[in-house]
Amino acid sequence: MGMTMTQKILAAHAGLDHVEAGQLIMAKLDIVMANDITGPMALPIFRQMADKVFDKDKVVLVPDHFTPNKDIKSAENSKAIREFAKDQGLSWYFEQGKSGVEHAILPEAGVVTAGECIIGADSHTCTYGALGAFSTGVGTTDISTGMATGELWFKVPSAIKFVLKGEPSEFVSGKDIIIHIIGKIGVDGALYKSMEFTGEGVSHLSMDDRFTIANMAIEAGAKNGIFPVDEQTKAYLAEHCKKEYHVYEADEDAVYEDVIEIDLSEVRPTVAFPHLPGNAKTIDEVEAMEPIKIDQVVIGSCTNGRMSDLRKAAAILKGHTVHPDVRVMVVPATQKIYKQCIAEGLLDIFVDAGCAVNTPSCGPCMGGHMGVMAAGEKCVSTTNRNFVGRMGHVDSLIYLASPEVAAASAIAGCIANPEKVGGDR
Amino acid sequence: MGMTMTQKILAAHAGLDHVEAGQLIMAKLDIVMANDITGPMALPIFRQMADKVFDKDKVVLVPDHFTPNKDIKSAENSKAIREFAKDQGLSWYFEQGKSGVEHAILPEAGVVTAGECIIGADSHTCTYGALGAFSTGVGTTDISTGMATGELWFKVPSAIKFVLKGEPSEFVSGKDIIIHIIGKIGVDGALYKSMEFTGEGVSHLSMDDRFTIANMAIEAGAKNGIFPVDEQTKAYLAEHCKKEYHVYEADEDAVYEDVIEIDLSEVRPTVAFPHLPGNAKTIDEVEAMEPIKIDQVVIGSCTNGRMSDLRKAAAILKGHTVHPDVRVMVVPATQKIYKQCIAEGLLDIFVDAGCAVNTPSCGPCMGGHMGVMAAGEKCVSTTNRNFVGRMGHVDSLIYLASPEVAAASAIAGCIANPEKVGGDR
Repeated sequence: MGMTMTQKILAAHAGLDHVEAGQLIMAKLDIVMANDITGPMALPIFRQMADKVFDKDKVVLVPDHFTPNKDIKSAENSKAIREFAKDQGLSWYFEQGKSGVEHAILPEAGVVTAGECIIGADSHTCTYGALGAFSTGVGTTDISTGMATGELWFKVPSAIKFVLKGEPSEFVSGKDIIIHIIGKIGVDGALYKSMEFTGEGVSHLSMDDRFTIANMAIEAGAKNGIFPVDEQTKAYLAEHCKKEYHVYEADEDAVYEDVIEIDLSEVRPTVAFPHLPGNAKTIDEVEAMEPIKIDQVVIGSCTNGRMSDLRKAAAILKGHTVHPDVRVMVVPATQKIYKQCIAEGLLDIFVDAGCAVNTPSCGPCMGGHMGVMAAGEKCVSTTNRNFVGRMGHVDSLIYLASPEVAAASAIAGCIANPEKVGGDR
Repeated sequence: MGMTMTQKILAAHAGLDHVEAGQLIMAKLDIVMANDITGPMALPIFRQMADKVFDKDKVVLVPDHFTPNKDIKSAENSKAIREFAKDQGLSWYFEQGKSGVEHAILPEAGVVTAGECIIGADSHTCTYGALGAFSTGVGTTDISTGMATGELWFKVPSAIKFVLKGEPSEFVSGKDIIIHIIGKIGVDGALYKSMEFTGEGVSHLSMDDRFTIANMAIEAGAKNGIFPVDEQTKAYLAEHCKKEYHVYEADEDAVYEDVIEIDLSEVRPTVAFPHLPGNAKTIDEVEAMEPIKIDQVVIGSCTNGRMSDLRKAAAILKGHTVHPDVRVMVVPATQKIYKQCIAEGLLDIFVDAGCAVNTPSCGPCMGGHMGVMAAGEKCVSTTNRNFVGRMGHVDSLIYLASPEVAAASAIAGCIANPEKVGGDR
């Protein structure tokens, strides 16, 4: 019985020729990552197990959630992991001002690569599946164990195969595709399963699209999301990563729980309405409703704060101004992206339009800071979760959307169709 | 008996030919300003007095302290003043993304001008004295009264005359001068008095220098700080403000409590050590000590977040990188300054050096957000107060300094002399 792509990676990391869904294995870890929320919680547990991390090149700490520190507690948390990173001599510690959002900086800085087995104490660690790695979010005890031993147990997941075909239309990107998929299968539609994306449609997806899609695999309950390693992946890795990598492919006779075909050419700009990422409505359905007035727009995060995301948002915003009743927070996901935005004139476009541009941070995504909402407020956000109270007051509402829908909505003051704003492209 | 410049303005606004120190007067107000901390507290009091503000062109609201909103409470506060501004049809409401720090945006946007009588519910409202206005910080009850009636009672202050002479040396700017002065007279050295700056030395001070100096008059306990209206002031007003203005000058025989001469050419780069702005040490004294290692640098605020401040910091940082043990927060004071920093390549310099550049906000200055300190941390900051716990934990330490000292310290990792870093100028 053949193995899925994920199973192949897990088998290799467990030193086994073959694994199957449901099997319990111990796998060697290539990268163990924590942030300024989960890292400080992990340290006391780690210290019960070890004095030194298993490998100073493989344990990564990123203060990104409450940085620049929003209060004393977050400053103490950042300090805890900063001092730990220094004491342990970690190769990869990303300080404020030289860093970015964890799931953007790790691929950009070449920390993660294809074929690896990666855990992170953050649910959106599944992002690195875009590179053809097995990557998943774990809790504090597991991350502590990983830091100490370099190994972790897994129950081998079964998989759903998504066969992508066709080419998405101009205003459709990774975000629309993943919201469309979660809308189709539901927020528990891939519970503890791998979402394996295949098919000729993959070639029409940029790396940024793939990061966005893999990032939100967890929003369908998946253990991980994963893409094949193609020429685009290889080009990305050649540019960003000096590590050797391994390409795994699913066996011809791999067993899937389900095979779902997605025609990318039929995907419309799609918005996830409150309070679930699977509450998908096409922009056409939205346009048929009464206008949904909004108070805030957030463009950024580990889902959609990358270069192509910001280019798309800027193309819409160029020459327009933000609606007077709306505040817009733009948060480039890394310092390098921020700098590239200066070089390409995107920051000028955002500032001229009336957006507040912040330093890289998870910021408003989880109601951390940099744009928390009051009661009754509505936000169109390029982030990944629209749970009750996620971005502030329990009576605030979050509509998840692509950078283009977010930018069009910022101008219109209500959820809007980017196809009709036009933009400069 | 002649009147000081401040007394002349107050007399005119009280409809009196003559006032003298200690006299109680009712003065008409030209501008009444509150922010996202003080505004929401003022509204319930205001509503006990009036339904409508006395003049929709003269009541100004600026959400700047906890914006972009750091938490639900601050989001509710911003919402309260946003809705009030809309209900009342205020001409001057400054939204996030289109705004800046109150004491930077009001002069820049032409809201305040020479000869006016201005109150703000923020202690650093004395900033506008740089324009030759009487401007002072008041509490919530007073600001509510001002909003409702357009008048407020004042006890006419006596004054200290500061006769500035000579020209400051290359690495000395407004911040060094005001710390030098507060060091000389103490943090209660001008208690409820006007600090009237005069002398030929004024002509060597840029408008930004004057804003910095007037801004910190309150740190000597002053009721206000004020500068004469000279050609530089007039040029600034011509560029920024469409309002008519009035030039007041002190009478020849004005009575001062004290006259203090300051030779600007003798002022050295000066740092205010914890925990008082008057705890001044010259950079030469600092260099004679053991190095004071730092954890953070903040460049920004209503004191030193203006264009010339950021130019000076960038000139030092250009081609250098921030010390690995230091995090640097750069916060341009307004959106216009932020944009100008892009145009002049300053943002590139900051980003290349490893600084986090934030959207305009009061941010870290009062420990609000965007760079709050943990226990034991030390910060060199271009802000205006170094009281215990001001920027975070009660066991953190703040050293107030100019943008140049701050930038040099960011590179060195300890409080450093900008004269020795050199920089690109």
